Order: sequence, then C-alpha cells, then structure tokens
Amino acid sequence: MPSFPEEDSGEGASSFPQPESSFDNDEDDFAEPRQTDTALLAEEDFLAEDNPTSLSFKRKQKQPTRLSLPSFFQSAPSPPRSTPTKTPLSSARVRRLREQTSRDGSDLAVGDAQDVYGEGSAKDGGPVDWYGDGPRRRVGYDNLTAIDWIFEYTKERQRLRMLHSRAQGLLGQLSKLWDSSQVWLILVATGALSGILAAAIDITTDWLGDLRTGFCYNGDGGGAFYLSKQFCCWGHEQTSDCLDWYDWSEAFHISSPSGGYIIEYILFTLTSVAFAASASLLVREYAPYAKHSGIPEIKTVLGGFVIKNFMGSWTLAIKSLGLCLAVASGLWLGKEGPLVHVACCCAYLLLKLSGPINGNEARKREVLSAAASAGISVAFGAPIGGVLFSLEQLSYYFPDATMWQSFVCAMVASILLQLMNPSRRDQLIQYQGSYTQGYHGFELLPFAILGILGGIYGGLFIKLNMKVARWRRSLRLAAYPILEVGLIALVTALVNFPNKFMKARPAKLVHILFAECGDIDEFGICQTNELHLWTIMQLLFAAVLGFLFASITFGLKIPSGIILPSMAIGALYGRVVGTIVHFTQQAHPTWLLFQNCETDKQCVTPGTYAIVGAAAALGGVTRMTVSIVVIMFELTGALIYVLPIMIAVMLSKWIGDIFGKRGIYESWIRFNEYPFLDNREDRQPPDIPVAQVMTRIDELATITSTGHTLQSLQEFLGMNQYRGYPIVVNHTNNIFLGYITRTELAFAIKSSMAEPRKLIPRTAVFFSHQPHADPLTTVDFRPWMDQTPITLNSKSTFQLTVDLFLKLGLKYVLLLNRGALQGLLTKKDVWYILDSVENDDQRAGEEPIAPRIGRSQEEHGLLSAATTSSAAPSLFHDR
Amino acid sequence: MPSFPEEDSGEGASSFPQPESSFDNDEDDFAEPRQTDTALLAEEDFLAEDNPTSLSFKRKQKQPTRLSLPSFFQSAPSPPRSTPTKTPLSSARVRRLREQTSRDGSDLAVGDAQDVYGEGSAKDGGPVDWYGDGPRRRVGYDNLTAIDWIFEYTKERQRLRMLHSRAQGLLGQLSKLWDSSQVWLILVATGALSGILAAAIDITTDWLGDLRTGFCYNGDGGGAFYLSKQFCCWGHEQTSDCLDWYDWSEAFHISSPSGGYIIEYILFTLTSVAFAASASLLVREYAPYAKHSGIPEIKTVLGGFVIKNFMGSWTLAIKSLGLCLAVASGLWLGKEGPLVHVACCCAYLLLKLSGPINGNEARKREVLSAAASAGISVAFGAPIGGVLFSLEQLSYYFPDATMWQSFVCAMVASILLQLMNPSRRDQLIQYQGSYTQGYHGFELLPFAILGILGGIYGGLFIKLNMKVARWRRSLRLAAYPILEVGLIALVTALVNFPNKFMKARPAKLVHILFAECGDIDEFGICQTNELHLWTIMQLLFAAVLGFLFASITFGLKIPSGIILPSMAIGALYGRVVGTIVHFTQQAHPTWLLFQNCETDKQCVTPGTYAIVGAAAALGGVTRMTVSIVVIMFELTGALIYVLPIMIAVMLSKWIGDIFGKRGIYESWIRFNEYPFLDNREDRQPPDIPVAQVMTRIDELATITSTGHTLQSLQEFLGMNQYRGYPIVVNHTNNIFLGYITRTELAFAIKSSMAEPRKLIPRTAVFFSHQPHADPLTTVDFRPWMDQTPITLNSKSTFQLTVDLFLKLGLKYVLLLNRGALQGLLTKKDVWYILDSVENDDQRAGEEPIAPRIGRSQEEHGLLSAATTSSAAPSLFHDR
Repeated sequence: MPSFPEEDSGEGASSFPQPESSFDNDEDDFAEPRQTDTALLAEEDFLAEDNPTSLSFKRKQKQPTRLSLPSFFQSAPSPPRSTPTKTPLSSARVRRLREQTSRDGSDLAVGDAQDVYGEGSAKDGGPVDWYGDGPRRRVGYDNLTAIDWIFEYTKERQRLRMLHSRAQGLLGQLSKLWDSSQVWLILVATGALSGILAAAIDITTDWLGDLRTGFCYNGDGGGAFYLSKQFCCWGHEQTSDCLDWYDWSEAFHISSPSGGYIIEYILFTLTSVAFAASASLLVREYAPYAKHSGIPEIKTVLGGFVIKNFMGSWTLAIKSLGLCLAVASGLWLGKEGPLVHVACCCAYLLLKLSGPINGNEARKREVLSAAASAGISVAFGAPIGGVLFSLEQLSYYFPDATMWQSFVCAMVASILLQLMNPSRRDQLIQYQGSYTQGYHGFELLPFAILGILGGIYGGLFIKLNMKVARWRRSLRLAAYPILEVGLIALVTALVNFPNKFMKARPAKLVHILFAECGDIDEFGICQTNELHLWTIMQLLFAAVLGFLFASITFGLKIPSGIILPSMAIGALYGRVVGTIVHFTQQAHPTWLLFQNCETDKQCVTPGTYAIVGAAAALGGVTRMTVSIVVIMFELTGALIYVLPIMIAVMLSKWIGDIFGKRGIYESWIRFNEYPFLDNREDRQPPDIPVAQVMTRIDELATITSTGHTLQSLQEFLGMNQYRGYPIVVNHTNNIFLGYITRTELAFAIKSSMAEPRKLIPRTAVFFSHQPHADPLTTVDFRPWMDQTPITLNSKSTFQLTVDLFLKLGLKYVLLLNRGALQGLLTKKDVWYILDSVENDDQRAGEEPIAPRIGRSQEEHGLLSAATTSSAAPSLFHDR
Repeated sequence: MPSFPEEDSGEGASSFPQPESSFDNDEDDFAEPRQTDTALLAEEDFLAEDNPTSLSFKRKQKQPTRLSLPSFFQSAPSPPRSTPTKTPLSSARVRRLREQTSRDGSDLAVGDAQDVYGEGSAKDGGPVDWYGDGPRRRVGYDNLTAIDWIFEYTKERQRLRMLHSRAQGLLGQLSKLWDSSQVWLILVATGALSGILAAAIDITTDWLGDLRTGFCYNGDGGGAFYLSKQFCCWGHEQTSDCLDWYDWSEAFHISSPSGGYIIEYILFTLTSVAFAASASLLVREYAPYAKHSGIPEIKTVLGGFVIKNFMGSWTLAIKSLGLCLAVASGLWLGKEGPLVHVACCCAYLLLKLSGPINGNEARKREVLSAAASAGISVAFGAPIGGVLFSLEQLSYYFPDATMWQSFVCAMVASILLQLMNPSRRDQLIQYQGSYTQGYHGFELLPFAILGILGGIYGGLFIKLNMKVARWRRSLRLAAYPILEVGLIALVTALVNFPNKFMKARPAKLVHILFAECGDIDEFGICQTNELHLWTIMQLLFAAVLGFLFASITFGLKIPSGIILPSMAIGALYGRVVGTIVHFTQQAHPTWLLFQNCETDKQCVTPGTYAIVGAAAALGGVTRMTVSIVVIMFELTGALIYVLPIMIAVMLSKWIGDIFGKRGIYESWIRFNEYPFLDNREDRQPPDIPVAQVMTRIDELATITSTGHTLQSLQEFLGMNQYRGYPIVVNHTNNIFLGYITRTELAFAIKSSMAEPRKLIPRTAVFFSHQPHADPLTTVDFRPWMDQTPITLNSKSTFQLTVDLFLKLGLKYVLLLNRGALQGLLTKKDVWYILDSVENDDQRAGEEPIAPRIGRSQEEHGLLSAATTSSAAPSLFHDR
C-alpha cells in the first residue's frame, strides 16, 4: 500500500477546486475552447478524463465478487461481509493523482472551503461545538454534481433564525428588512436589465438584418448608417418615398434590374454568411456555453445540478451579441430561448451582489427561475405567459413565493421593454391584429386538424433534429463549427433570397401570417382571384424548407432558439389550411357546413388559422400547454380564439406524445446526457424493489466509527475514489451511523492537521460519541458527517425511492434493513436507471418492463452491470 | 381483562363505516342537523364523543410513567422497555363499544371494506400471494383523517401497470384510451355544469334581487313575473320608459312620494329578511356544509384530509339555491367563494361516474383542484385567473398535468357561461371599461397608498371577523342561526335602502366604481362641481359600513363569500382616493407634481383608483398575489394598469403580513381547527430535534412480530384504541419491522376468522417471515402491514420532519435509531405542534422559539403534554 508524502496528503482536496461559487464563470478555466461538447462538460471534472476510477457517484462496473447472497432480502439479518473491497492503487495512478494535485493548487481550494465552512456554520451558528451534535458542515459542490435541496433550505432557515435572533433594536430591524428586500432588488434589477438588453438586441438585429439588403445614408446629415430601414424611412408611407435608404444595387449604381438582383443576391448571401460565421467564431472563442438555446441547461441547473461556467459575464456578452448576428443572418432560428438564457445570466451576475442568496444554491435557483420568466416576457411581451412558461417548462421546486417573484421579474422586464420601445410602434401586444371576427362552429374541425398536424410536425421535428445532432456528432465536421455554420448560412441565404416568405425573418413572417387580411398584406396572400393555388404552393414550400432548415440549424454552435421557427412553420401551414377553407367556402357558400356564414362579410379568417397552427406547432415541439395558450393570447390579443388554440394545443400534445414523450428540450437534455430527473407524472419507473438497483454494501467503501486515525483515513481516501462514504459501527453488523462526503472528510483531515490544532497523523478519529476519549489527543468528525441522512427500507419499491428523490430533492439515499446498511442510491443512479429503462423501452417496444429487468438480471447478474455495459458513452461515465 | 363474545369481535371494524367513498354525501348521516359546528364535524367520529380514549391519532395526555430515560437519545442502544402501557378497559366502555357496534352494523362495514380490498389489490394485482411480500392492502379512510398521498399514487401506478399489461389488441387499446379519457370527460362535464349553474345562479339572483324593489308584469302577455328588471325593460333606454316593470309603490297604487318610499322601504326590508332567512333555513335543514364560502374546507380536503359529507348532491343543490337567496338578500357577501364550492360539488358528483378516479383519493383531489379553478373562472369570467387562484390558494400537490386540467376545466366553464350569456351583454370581460387613459408617474404614489390601505384593511378585517366569529361561538345566539341571519339581514336592509351605494348589490357597485367617467355614472360620482365633498363622504360612509357588515356577515350559516365585498370596499375607498387626487389636480394644475398632465383631457381617472383599491383590498384579505393581478386584468381588460395593480398588491401583502401571516381562509381553517398543514415557505418550525416532540415508544402500543394469536390481537385492539400500531421484533430491542393501521388489522382478523378461512381464535399470527410455520394453521399478516413506511433518524430536526410531511404527503413517520423504534409522529401531530407554536408565538410576541420549548419541557415534562393541556377545545381532541 503506497503511503503519500506529507505535501500530497490533501489530494482529496483537489476535488473541490471552487467550492463556494459552484457555477462561477471563471474564464481561466477555458483551457481548450475548441473542444467538443463532451470534453467541454468534462473539463472541470478532470479526474474523469485521467483517472479510470475517478471521483464519481456514477455506478462503476460491478467487480466480480465471490459472495453469493441468495437470502439477501430475507427478513433475517444479513450475513456479515466477508470480503472487504480494497482495490490496490497502482503506482501510475498515484503519480497521476500527484500531478493533478500539484497542478490544481489544493491549498487554494482548501482556503475557499474554509470560507464556506466559516459562512455555513461558524459565523452563523454561534460558538461552534466541534464535539457536539451541532449543525452539519459542508464544503461546496463540484461541477456536475447534484445539490442537496434539503440541506440548502435548512442552511437558509438557520441563517434566518440567526439573523432574527441577533436583530435587536432599529438597526436589527433594518438589517432584517435589508436581508428580505435583497431578493426583490435583484429581481427588479434582473427584469430591468433583461428588458434593456432585449430592446438592444431587437434594435441591433433589425439593423444588421436590414444591412443585408442595403444601408441608410443621409446625404445632408451623414452618419445615419446605424439606422435600420424602418427608422431610416420613418414617416414615409411608401418605401419608394424613402430617399435615405439605399439598396445595395442603388449603392453600386447598377441600373439594370437583373444586375441589381444579382448584386443584391450576392451581398445578401455574403453578409448572411459573415454574420453567422462571426456569431460562431465569438461563441467558439469566448463562451462555448453561449451556443444553442440554453434551455436544456437551465432546466438541468434548476433541477438541482451544478454546471459551472454556464452563466456569467462572458456568456452574457457573447450570447447577446451572437444572438443579434445569428438572427440577422437569416438562419431559421429564434431569439426566444436564448433570451431566457440571457435573463438568467443577468440574474446570475446580479446575484453576486447579494451574499446570502449567492451563497445558497437553492435560493439562487429560485431567482434564476424567476429570471427565466423575464426572458419569455421580453421575447413575446407576455409576462403572464413567461411566468407560466417558467412554471410549466423549467421549474422544479416552485414554491408559491417564486411565482410572485417570477411575476414581478417578468413584469418589470416587460415594462422596461415597453419603455425602451425598440420598434417605436407603441403597442403593448406584439402582433396585435383587429381580430374582430369570431369563428364558426364548423371551423373547429380544421382547427383540430391543425392541432393534429402540429403534433405530427413536433414529433417529426424532434426525430429529425436528433438524427441530425447524432449525425453531426459522428462526423468530423463537428471539429469545424464555423465552417459548418457558414455552410448552412450560405445554403439558407441562397434559398431564402428568392422566396419572399423566407427572405423575411421569422418574426416578421409570423406577424404577417397572423394578420387579418384587412390589416396587412405585404405578401399578397389575401388576393381573392385565382392566384390562390400558387400562394398555397409557395406557403407549403416555405413550410417544408423551414422545417428542414430549422432542424439542421437548431443544434449549431451559435445562439439559436426553436420557438419562433416552430411558430413560423405552424403559421405557414396554418395559413395554407386557412386559405383552403376560405376558398372552399367562397366556392361553395351553399354547402350545409357553411350555412352559419354571414353573407355580407368574410366568413373565414385565414389569419386565425395561422395563429392556431403556430400554437399547435409550438405545442408539438415543446409539449407545453397552458403557457402556449397564454403566450399566444398575450402575443396577439386575440382572446376570442382561446378555445380553438386550446383544442389545437391539446391535440398537438397528445399526438406528439405518440411519437415520444419528450419535448425538444428534454430530448436535448437526454442527448447531452445531462443528469436531469424529470418530475413529470407520466413516467413509469420500473416496478422493482430498490434493492435490485442500489449499489450494494459489498460494492461500497464504508468507514467504521472507531479505529481510524487521520493517517488511515487519508490512505482510505486515496484508495477509495468515491464521492462519499457511509459510516457504520463495524463491518460485522454494518449498523448505519451516518454519511460523509469525500470533500468534507478530506477537508476535515486537512484542517485537523493544520493550524491551530496541528494534530499528528496518528490521532484517533471517531464518528460516534466517545465519552471517555480525550478531546486533546483525539478528534471527533461527527460535525462533518451527515448524521441524519434520509434512509429507506431496502425492501421499498424503486418507485417510492424515485418519489423521494423528486419531491425532496435528495442527493443520495441510504438503504437500510433493521438498522443495518444494505446499500446506497444516488440521484445520478436514479437518473441513469430511468434513462436506461427508457432506452430499453424504445428498443423493446411494447414489452412490459418488469419481466425484462428480471431477464437482464439473469443475463448480466445485476441491473447495474447490465445498464452500464449497454450505455452510450456518457460524460459521467467512469471510463 | 374482558373478553369479547364472538359476535362483538369486529368492534374495530366500526371505525370504517364507509371505507370506499370516503367523503361520500350520505344524507342518512345527518342525524342532528341542528348541531353546532364542532358537533357537526365530529358526528362521523362518534367514538370521539362517547369514548374517552377513542380512535385518534391525536396525541393523548401523557400518562405518568416511572421510566426516566436521561440517555434516551445517546448513541448507545436504548434501554429495554420495562412497563408496557396497558390501559384496562372499564366495563362501561365495553358496553358503549358494543352498543356502537350493533348500532353501526359492522357487517356492512366489513362488506364495504372487502370491496375496497378487492379493488385495491385482488382484482388488479392478479393472483394474490397472501403469504408473500405482495402489494400492501388498505381499507378506506376514516372521516377527518389524512390520506396517504404516496400510497394513493402507488396504487394508481399499479392499476395503470395492470391495465397496460392486460391491454392486448384493439380492445385493450380502446380500454386504455377510455381509461385515460375519463378524466378529460369529467373535467369537461364539470366545466360545463359549473358554467350552466353559474349562469342559472346569475339569472336567479338578478330576478330575486329586483323582486325586492318591484316586479315585472305584462298586462297583455301576462306571466312575465320571472323576469328581472333588466330583461323586463329590455330595449328601453330609460327606466321610466319601461312600462312592464312595477315598483312596489306603483303596484300598491301609492302616489305620494313619501308613502311610496315608505312602502318600498318596508317591502325591500321584508323581502331581504325573507330571502336571507330562507337561505339559512335551507342550509340548516338540508346541507349544513353549504354554509360559508367553503374555501377553507376545500383547502383542507385538497391538503389531504377527508371531510365526509362536504360535497354531494344536497350540498350542491342547497348551496346553489341558498347562494341565490343570500346574494339577492343584499347582505354584504359575494358569490365567488361559494361558486368554487359549487364547482367542486359538480366535480365530486361527476367523479362517481368514473370508478378508477373515484377510487383514488389523490386523483380525486387533482380533479377537485381543477374544478376549483372553474369556480373562479365563472365567478369572474377569468379562466387564467382561476387556474392561478387554484395554484396559489388551494392546491397542495399540483403536478404539471393538473395545471393543464385546471385550464381545460376553467376554459370550458367560462365558454359555457358565455354561451349562456346570463347578462345578455355579449361581452367577454365582465367589467369592461374603455380605459383609454394611461396613468402618470406621480399617480404611483396614491396607488402605493392604496396598497398600504389594502393591507391595513385586510389585517383589520381578518382580526375583526375572527373576533366576531369567536364571540358568536361563545354566544347562545349560535343555536338560532336563522334568527341571527334574519337580524343581520334586517339591519343591513334598513341601512342599505337609503344609501344609493349600498342599495346596489356589490357586483353592480364594483362595476360602476370601476368605470371611467365617460362610460357610466349612475350614482353621480363624476360630477365635477362642488358636490365632491359630499360624494367623498358618502363613499367613505359606504366603505366603513360595508367593512362592518362584511365582517359580521362572513361566518353566518349561509353561503357567503368574501371576495366581492372586499373588492367593493376597496373600490369604494379607492374611488375616494381617486376623487381626491382628481380634484387636487383640477384645483392646482400648475403644481410641479402635475406637470406631466395633458391640458386638453382629464388627467386623473378615478375609476383606475377603484380598480387598484379593489385589488389591494382583495390582496390584503386573501394574501394572494399573481392570481389577483390576473383576475383584475381579466375582469376589466385593463392591461395597462397591471403595474399599479402589481405594486398595490405587493404592498398590500407585505403590510397585511405585519398584522398576521394568515389570510382570511387560513384564519378560518385555524378557527375551525381543520388539520391543514400549510406548505407556504414563510413558516419557521421550531428548531428542535424531532425526538422532543414525537410520541415516544413508551407511550406507543406496539405489536411484536411473533407470539400473537388472532384472539390476543383482538384483545390488544380492544385495549389500545389507537389508529395504528408499529410492529417490532420484540419489546427488548424494539427493532422496527413495520406499521399496521387499526382498520386493516381489525379487518384482517375479521376476514381470517370468516369464510373461507374460518381460522380459530387461537391461530398464531406472524408479522415476519416464518419459513417453518404451517400456512394452514397459522396466518401471516404481512400483506396488511406497511413493511416499508417512511422512517427517519430520531436525531433529525423537526424541520426536516415537517419537510417530509409537506413534500411527500405522509400520514405518519416512524423515528428510528440504529434500527430500533424510538417514536412516532403523525401528520396531525405535526399540524398540532406547528399550531401550538404559533399560538405561543402570538402570546409571547418576539421571544425566540427554542428557549421557550426548552422551558416548557422543564415545566411540563414533555412538549406533548404541555401543548395538549394548553390547547383550545378541538374537534380532534380525545376528550
């Protein structure tokens, strides 16, 4: 057994490089910005790359054991453990560990940890009773680990209790008031900042987008190049009246129409590609997490996992700027999802101003979920929709207070956006139409068809998008993201320019498609002569192309959302259906179906169909329900169409669920293998006892409550690279006493041996009450251990265990029988098992779950072994 | 020790009179309709009245014990229990028990229980393995007991799994589809029924209300007496043009104005009293639960308690009819809260059509919480507000799916109400005004003042209303509810008639106060001449009187809500503030404050202040936030006033919370001592270990796993009248095995001794695996016991325990240490402790909690004893 030299003794400490700010954006960490997704996510967890049996809660490959425990779950006490699992450390591994330790600066880490320790209990908890049953002490979380909601909320309650007990007199009352008002200040500031940023993004996007077709130049004033076409031509009824705006053909003084068309085509394409490529370049160089919509990651973070570097100032800056470029490039993407990420980044940065909230991972997530609603609020001008979006799509633990916080944040954001008024249209509702016409009973049939189409679209889109994502990952192209983005932007621009529907960016397209025919008809889709078949073909063509482009674009390494493209596609085919119904009614007004139509005015409003189609498509892709209805209604002000929208969204969700229960964001969570435990109701965990899937005690490294010294524990840490260790009375009966995590144990050892105690390595360590031990020559580690972790009877069902994890936000659960430890199950284990079962489901089709698990047990010994061996390469994987 | 004759052996079974339909409205149960509240609630739990140590989870007075356990929570194994707590049964009690048994028909009860048993596992679970570790078996719930959410959801999952595994071929698919569509059909039907009922109530109320001033009579057509004034005079611009409507003075042919006034005054008063008294009579005679708003009870039911007879056909009928009468009587009450109860009754009745949902208490509550949103939806025409109301105010466990279900239910209800169109106004938004004017920056100051006033109003209202309720309970008047209602109706009518603001019913008053001056000015509150001081005095007078009337009316034994009266009071004082600001601006238009006012149009809209005031008042009374903002916005269509409303509601909540954290509904829950565990965040449970408050093992009656016979268990049941019993290996080490409830144990004994097994009383009973026992001559009760109840370490904090109860919806938790049972804590215990602590808080003011509990322990031995002895008379009390 190798013994470590003194200076290496804290190698366990290398597992908490930044214990306090656990998703801090420290730009120094970006050692290799060009890495692929998996490497990017794993970079913090360097041990996972170097070290075969690294620090991980992830179930390791089951080691062959000679124990046969046929009566393991009988009522009789379990037999004593005969073979302690001691894996000797190879010298190569020790060398690697040492290198890592020296590379990472474990001293700094311990210093940070001490801060947390001080904040967590020493400062707040009054005089620390090191030997007593005081509050539990905790070091921060590692990257990609689960947070412990119960612990965080307990910490917060203790902090509040301390604050209240110390709050004497006016000053105390003021400090209490200050403490409770901090969160509101942060929320208001987040809302305001999100609103301002959204307005800035709107204006920049418009300008960049118009720059593809021409520029603004005022001969007299000069320098108005920063104006978009809309503002350049402000006050002019017709575009032809507007003298300050120069199309590129005019700028190059090309008078022939075909020459002008060609030069405009070329410049449109070139600028589009340039914008897209620069967005990609920015993302690659400065903030890899600024790619994509960010919603899958936000879901994971709010679900209680730590993703470092995901939010921060660089991500915020690059995401905002990249979003302008990406949207302006004409790619089929939306700004809605990324705006949620932007709002969360704002909140994250502002949170740093408040110590108490920033120090609590649970409260941080409350504020982030409120910020997310501000994102949707500014994206659609829909504050209530934003709150419901956050509630329905993102939030995991959504206490009542958070709903109100979300609402305040969303409202402030929406008000700020209105005050900024980036479009200068002075209207509250983004796509306001007049919507004077109601709908007729017979129209519910086409509306229902739209709902079904939306479900089919959503299901197919998710399948295609995932296929593209997998294909992209397998290709070498993934190593050249800028090239990839540029190519797709090139093709998109080439296709877009000649097609009037696609040349307009999705936001404008949606606006025009939603409108009643009396309001706007920029594209000539309202003509009532025989041109309608051509219009229908054009609309359909745009819908199909949009579908294809959106499915290859969503997943590129640029900021991109899927909400608006989906709405645009839905609006396109919705308009098609609406136009068909409209012409049918006009051609056959005497049909029984149309008898309720008034003769004096238009019976069918195709714009309504576009709205319903957009809602259905969005429902099919995201599988949201209430929030879509509310967003559509806040977006269009069309309260009278709530019923059709509701029917369509309901059908769309049901049809979409046939293709697969996961929405696009859940699919991406799964694709990226984020450890997200979905708390939706519709999942059916396998009906097995938890004992079948837990990590059994013979696979666990346990610590006995007595008989250890500081040195032996250090050696134990070196040999057993797990994230935590159960503590038992002895290895004979395994009576369970508590649980200690690796980080805390390592820190406790380190701090006992450092100033001021300076204990020698041979000092005896206890994990239980030792009344006769000399407190000067021994050390009690109980304050560092969780003496009352949540435990379950090992006979419980797996379902019950999942319920516990979901509802309590646990990190791990210990399985006992009659007081004796039987095994351990962690949140990642649960996630992994549910994930594997679903994988199996997809492979096996309709076969019931329970028998298959039984069979896999026969084949592979244990489910754990079976699932691990069959799993796809995972970033949480041990090797 | 008395031994029971054979025929009395099932006296334990008398504790489940209706195991299946646990809040069934069986009218036969109304033996004594004239009883007081406490008796009414306790009537099902007859043992609580007759039997001093009845079946109750409620903590009993601690019996003096000679055990002193100073080191009880030391790490060392707990000392063996030396004094088993055996309370000898007095012969008088045995006689009473026998009478109850014969009175109650225990055979019927067992028959019912068998049904449940069959449904729960035998039918669904395939071949029942009586001896194995099969699914747990459960009899229904008693009245006023907590449901076990985990168990209910597990049952549902098992049922679904069975359904899926049996679903072969087309028929199977159809049965699956039918199963999953049932809930939607019920929701749609509930929404439709609620909408229709709400429309009917609207029309009836209008008619009855107008009947107090006159009647409709068409000389030619005749028989139009059933028309309200509005419909009678349909098409007439001026009321004076309307010839079909006769005021009472006209009907009696009294021409002198004073005589006419007097006769109208008298008839107005008489009809008001008659309506109110008949509402009260109906409630007293037919449906005692139809009184009040019902929201506190719905909260309790949704929180997981069983209140029998609370919903049902009679309650529905009487609540609807009584609501019409009560509202028409002009008392200061609203129909909003009662409509929630009506909608829940509709859902409850419709649920009976669906076996699978009706059989599951958890799913039943999901549907009920959706129905509640339909109630608010029809009350205000605010479907989204209804969903949020249900989410914010009522729902306990609100999974995502339920939000969508609520939305569907609320939308259908709202659409049906619109289709019925009871007011024939053809408008979607109830109090639609034009609201063309925005507000100015300086107005935020008066809006904030309105918010503060709302908070003060809410706080004072709750205090006054509770004082009145306590005073009423202490008075003999409570025995004469009709007299009381009649008296208050008399006073109200006498005061209302001469006051134009109060003569109008609150709904109309609110409508007029909300309006912009250009729209409606029925009461002359828009005059700009010097009359304004008189108007202000009148408005203020009405607000104060309304406040007093509302606080004595809410709590009467008639259907009555508090939402609309609060809004009316808020609108009254809001209009006062608005009028003051308006006149100040008009008098001093040059003040710096008013410099932003446009000179050409009215600067201040007093109607806005009424809206903001109403929202603030409602916020102060109910302490809701988001839902009020959304309801106000759906009610008035005034999207531009969202910011002022939001600010006012936020301030109102904060100011109100200074008076006391509880809203009006929580206060009533507390007043009625419903066992509702509030899951709001802002409660601070005492910072003590759970061991200090649990029922310790020396106070518990435990069962050993071996050594019992059927007869000895029967005797054990007779001697230990608790609702459940932990099972331990033996009394020496108390190693915990499981938990069995009284009902299940009694039923298991009964069914073992009945056909087909017909075991003799001396049959040995086991609660653990006995491989060598003869299955023919012994019986294994494991299927009836909960072998994996949720357990906690007894060293855990009370906070953690409360978290567990709140988040998992537990019924009880077992406290262990190293596998040995240490104690038990039930949901009612937790509720009771939190309640007592809050009581103490209110008495002790600012003193911190922990030291006091420490002291009370010194004074009284144990907290349990202390709290029990100091508690107010409770309906869950043992004696």
